[in-house]
Amino acid sequence: MNRTSKKVAVIAGVGEGLGQAIARRFAPDYLVMFARDLEKLQGYAAQLRDAGSEATGMKVDLRVEREIVEALATIEQEIGPIEVAVYNAGAQHRKPLLEISGDAFEKVWRLGAFGAFVFAREAVRHMEPRGQGTIIFTGATSSLRGGANFGAFAAAKFATRAVIQSIAREFGPKGIHAATVIIDGAVNMPAIHRLFPDLAKSMPPDGMLSTDEVAETYYQIHRQHRSAWTLEADLRPYSEKF
Amino acid sequence: MNRTSKKVAVIAGVGEGLGQAIARRFAPDYLVMFARDLEKLQGYAAQLRDAGSEATGMKVDLRVEREIVEALATIEQEIGPIEVAVYNAGAQHRKPLLEISGDAFEKVWRLGAFGAFVFAREAVRHMEPRGQGTIIFTGATSSLRGGANFGAFAAAKFATRAVIQSIAREFGPKGIHAATVIIDGAVNMPAIHRLFPDLAKSMPPDGMLSTDEVAETYYQIHRQHRSAWTLEADLRPYSEKF
Amino acid sequence: MNRTSKKVAVIAGVGEGLGQAIARRFAPDYLVMFARDLEKLQGYAAQLRDAGSEATGMKVDLRVEREIVEALATIEQEIGPIEVAVYNAGAQHRKPLLEISGDAFEKVWRLGAFGAFVFAREAVRHMEPRGQGTIIFTGATSSLRGGANFGAFAAAKFATRAVIQSIAREFGPKGIHAATVIIDGAVNMPAIHRLFPDLAKSMPPDGMLSTDEVAETYYQIHRQHRSAWTLEADLRPYSEKF
Amino acid sequence: MNRTSKKVAVIAGVGEGLGQAIARRFAPDYLVMFARDLEKLQGYAAQLRDAGSEATGMKVDLRVEREIVEALATIEQEIGPIEVAVYNAGAQHRKPLLEISGDAFEKVWRLGAFGAFVFAREAVRHMEPRGQGTIIFTGATSSLRGGANFGAFAAAKFATRAVIQSIAREFGPKGIHAATVIIDGAVNMPAIHRLFPDLAKSMPPDGMLSTDEVAETYYQIHRQHRSAWTLEADLRPYSEKF
Repeated sequence: MNRTSKKVAVIAGVGEGLGQAIARRFAPDYLVMFARDLEKLQGYAAQLRDAGSEATGMKVDLRVEREIVEALATIEQEIGPIEVAVYNAGAQHRKPLLEISGDAFEKVWRLGAFGAFVFAREAVRHMEPRGQGTIIFTGATSSLRGGANFGAFAAAKFATRAVIQSIAREFGPKGIHAATVIIDGAVNMPAIHRLFPDLAKSMPPDGMLSTDEVAETYYQIHRQHRSAWTLEADLRPYSEKF
Repeated sequence: MNRTSKKVAVIAGVGEGLGQAIARRFAPDYLVMFARDLEKLQGYAAQLRDAGSEATGMKVDLRVEREIVEALATIEQEIGPIEVAVYNAGAQHRKPLLEISGDAFEKVWRLGAFGAFVFAREAVRHMEPRGQGTIIFTGATSSLRGGANFGAFAAAKFATRAVIQSIAREFGPKGIHAATVIIDGAVNMPAIHRLFPDLAKSMPPDGMLSTDEVAETYYQIHRQHRSAWTLEADLRPYSEKF
Repeated sequence: MNRTSKKVAVIAGVGEGLGQAIARRFAPDYLVMFARDLEKLQGYAAQLRDAGSEATGMKVDLRVEREIVEALATIEQEIGPIEVAVYNAGAQHRKPLLEISGDAFEKVWRLGAFGAFVFAREAVRHMEPRGQGTIIFTGATSSLRGGANFGAFAAAKFATRAVIQSIAREFGPKGIHAATVIIDGAVNMPAIHRLFPDLAKSMPPDGMLSTDEVAETYYQIHRQHRSAWTLEADLRPYSEKF
Repeated sequence: MNRTSKKVAVIAGVGEGLGQAIARRFAPDYLVMFARDLEKLQGYAAQLRDAGSEATGMKVDLRVEREIVEALATIEQEIGPIEVAVYNAGAQHRKPLLEISGDAFEKVWRLGAFGAFVFAREAVRHMEPRGQGTIIFTGATSSLRGGANFGAFAAAKFATRAVIQSIAREFGPKGIHAATVIIDGAVNMPAIHRLFPDLAKSMPPDGMLSTDEVAETYYQIHRQHRSAWTLEADLRPYSEKF
C-alpha cells in the first residue's frame, strides 16, 4: 500500500460489531487500519473500499508488545501519520470468582488492558511530536463497577480507564486527546443474537446500543476542539436500567 | 409571536457567554427561546433573526416556580412543542465557609438548583406525552468536587446532577434524554477577561473553553439516537490541570 | 444545666432510630445534646442519664438559621466546648418527578441540606479556634445516585456531601475532621417495621443496618487520629444488592 | 508450628511500613502470618512473639499463583482457619508514559493486581464454607485517579478496587466482608525519609499517615458487624491537599 494523503485512523479490535462501525464512521475522512484476524479484516477493508474509502487490514496480535510497536511504526513510515487510535479489543468475561483461573485472569487483562496500554503508548509516541492526535478506549459498565462474576473483566476495564486518565493528564497539554467511551448496555451485534437470543427478543426497539450510533460519539469526541475535550462519556440505551 | 413550524429549544440562563453560544448552535434548526433579562434577550434574539433564525426572548425569573411553569406552558400553547430544554443559569460562588450566610447559600441554591429542578420538571411534563425531548444541565467542576470555598456553589451543582440522574432513570425509558455537561475549566467569555484579566492572559491559546465548542457538545448530545445516550460528559481545555 | 467537665457531642436529628443510637454511643464519653422534638428528647435524655451518662435535650428547628446559630452558641457558652457535631436530620422522600411540588423540593432541601450547612458552619466556627473537632453527616444511597423518584431527596443528599467535602478541604488543615457516612440500605428502626412490614420480614437476619453498628462507625471515625482521617465511608448490610 | 486456638490473620506484603503495623494491630487477637522475604519476616515475627503474640513468617512469591494457593492451603490445614486476609503488596511506580516498558507495566500489575486477585480468591475459597471472613486490600490515591506518570501503578490499583467490589457483590451475601482502604497521602515509614528527605521535612506534624493509625482503620473495618459493612473508606492526613 502506498502512502496516502489522508490521515490515518487505526482501530484495534475489529470484529463484526462495534469495531467495524467505528471503521465505517471514520472511513470517509481517514484511511482506516484494522488490526486483528487478517482474513476477516481484508473482507471488511474491501467493503469500505467498495464504498469509496481507503482502508486496509493488518495482522497484529494485540497481546504481544513487539507486534503492536512494529505495526504502528510501519503505518507511520509507510502509510501516513496516525491521527486517531481506537482500542476496542477485549471480550466480556463473566465467571464466578472461584472458577476464574489465574491464567484466565491474565488473558483477560493481556488483551483488555496490556494491549491497550502498549497501543496507546505507541500512538502517543508518534503523535507527540506533531502535537495532536486522538486516542479512544472502549469502556464498559465494568469500567466503573466491579459486578459479581465480573472480577476479571472489571479488573481489565478499570485498568484501561486509569491508563487513559493518566495519558490525558500527561499528554493533554501536549495536544493529545485521550478519552474513554463507557458503554453501559448490550451492544446490538450479531453475536448477541446468536448467544442470547431471548435477551435480544425481550428488548424494546432500540433497546440495545446501535453500533453506528456508538461510533458517531467516537467520531464527535475526535472532532472536539482542544479547548473543550471530553475525557469520559457514558452511552446507554434509553430503556436501560442503571 | 405566531406558532412556528420549527421545534423549540428553550435555553434558560442566557448572558453574554455560554447561553448565547448554545442559542446560536441550536438556532438554525430550532426556534430558540431565551429566558432572563428581557432587554438583553431582545438584543440577542435580534442578532439571531438577522442571521436568519427564528428566535425570541421571554422574561422569566428562574427563582420563581410559577413563572417557569407559566412560561413553558405559554411556549407550548402559543409557539410550538419544546424539544430541547437547557438550564444554564447560576453563577459561580466562591467564599470562605464562615462568610457564607444562610441567605447566600439559599440564593445560590434557588437559582442554581431549585430553578433547574422546576424547569426540568415542567419540560418533562410537556415532553412526556410526545415520548421525546432533551434536557441538558450545565455542570461544573463543582458538580463532582466540593472544593474549599465552594460550599454553596458545589451544593447547588451536586444537587442538579442528582436531579438529572433521577430524571434520566425515570424518564429515559419514556424517551426523554437527560444529560449533564460537566464543564471543568474557565470558560472564555467577556466576564472572565474583565474580572480576572491576569488569569486570562496567563492561559495558553485555547486554554479556556470556547463557548462555541462547548455548545457543539450540547448539540451533539441532543442529536444522539435513543439507542446510545450520554448521561454525563465532561469538557475541559487540553491544557487544564485536573 | 451546669457547665460540664466533659466535652460535648451535639446530634441534630434524633428520632427513634439512628440518632438515638449515635447519642448512646457517644454518651459515655461526651455530654450529648439532642436537637428536635423537645418532649421526646427529654425522654431520650432521661434514659441516657439513667444509664449514667450526661445528656440533655434542646428544642431547635433545624430549618431556621437563627435557631441553629443560637443553640450552638448557647451550648458553647453555658455547657461546654462542642467536640463532635453530627447532622442526622432529613427523612427520605420518594415521589415521581411530576408530583414533586416546588414546595416539597424546597422542604426536603431545607431540612436535609440547608440545616446541615448552617449546623456545620456554626460548629466549625466554634471548633476552629481550638484546632479540633469532628463533623459527621449522615449520607444515604441517594448521596451518590439520583434514583428514579428520588429527585428531591438525592438533590439534598448530594448537596450535603458537597458541603462536607468543601469543609474538609478548607478546615482539614486547621484540625477539623469532616466526614460523610453513606448508609446504603434499610436501617433497622421501628418506623421501617411499621411502614414496610413485608420488606422487613423478607430480609435475612442482619439484613437491615443495625443502628448501633452504624453508630459504632461514626464513633470510630471520630476517634481517628488526624494523621489518618476518613472523608467518606459507606455502610451496607452484607446481604444488600448494590 | 502447631495448630493454634487463635484465628489467623494473613498479611501479604509486609515490609518495614504499613504491613508491619497491620500485623501488630491484629496480633493480640490473631496469629499473624507474614508473606514475603523470609529472613526479615522471621525478625518481625520474633518481635511480635516477644510482645506476647503468636506470629510466624512464610516465604511466598506473590507473583506466582501456585505459591499463593499452596501457602493458604497449608495455613488452613496446619495452623488454623483464616479469618482475615490483607493484601498490602505492590510498590508505587511513577514514570513518564513513554518510558514504561511493557515489562514494567506487567510487573507492576503482577504484584499489585494479579497476586491480589489470587490471594483474595483463595482466601474466599477457604472462608466461604464457614460463612465469614474479611478481605482487605490496600488502595491508594491511584485507586481513584490515573495521574500523570502513574499509568502503570493506577492500572494495577484500579484493577484491585474492581476485584474487591466484585468479591463484595458475589460473597457479601455469603458472609465475607471485602473492603478497600484508599490511602491518599504519604505514609510515614522509613523508606520515605530515606528516599524523599526534603518532602518528609516539609510536612507539618502528623502530615504523613501514621502506619499505626492506618492499621487501626483496617482493624475497625474487620470488626464491623455484618449488618453494617464498609466497602471503601479513604484515609488521608488532615493537612493533605486533595
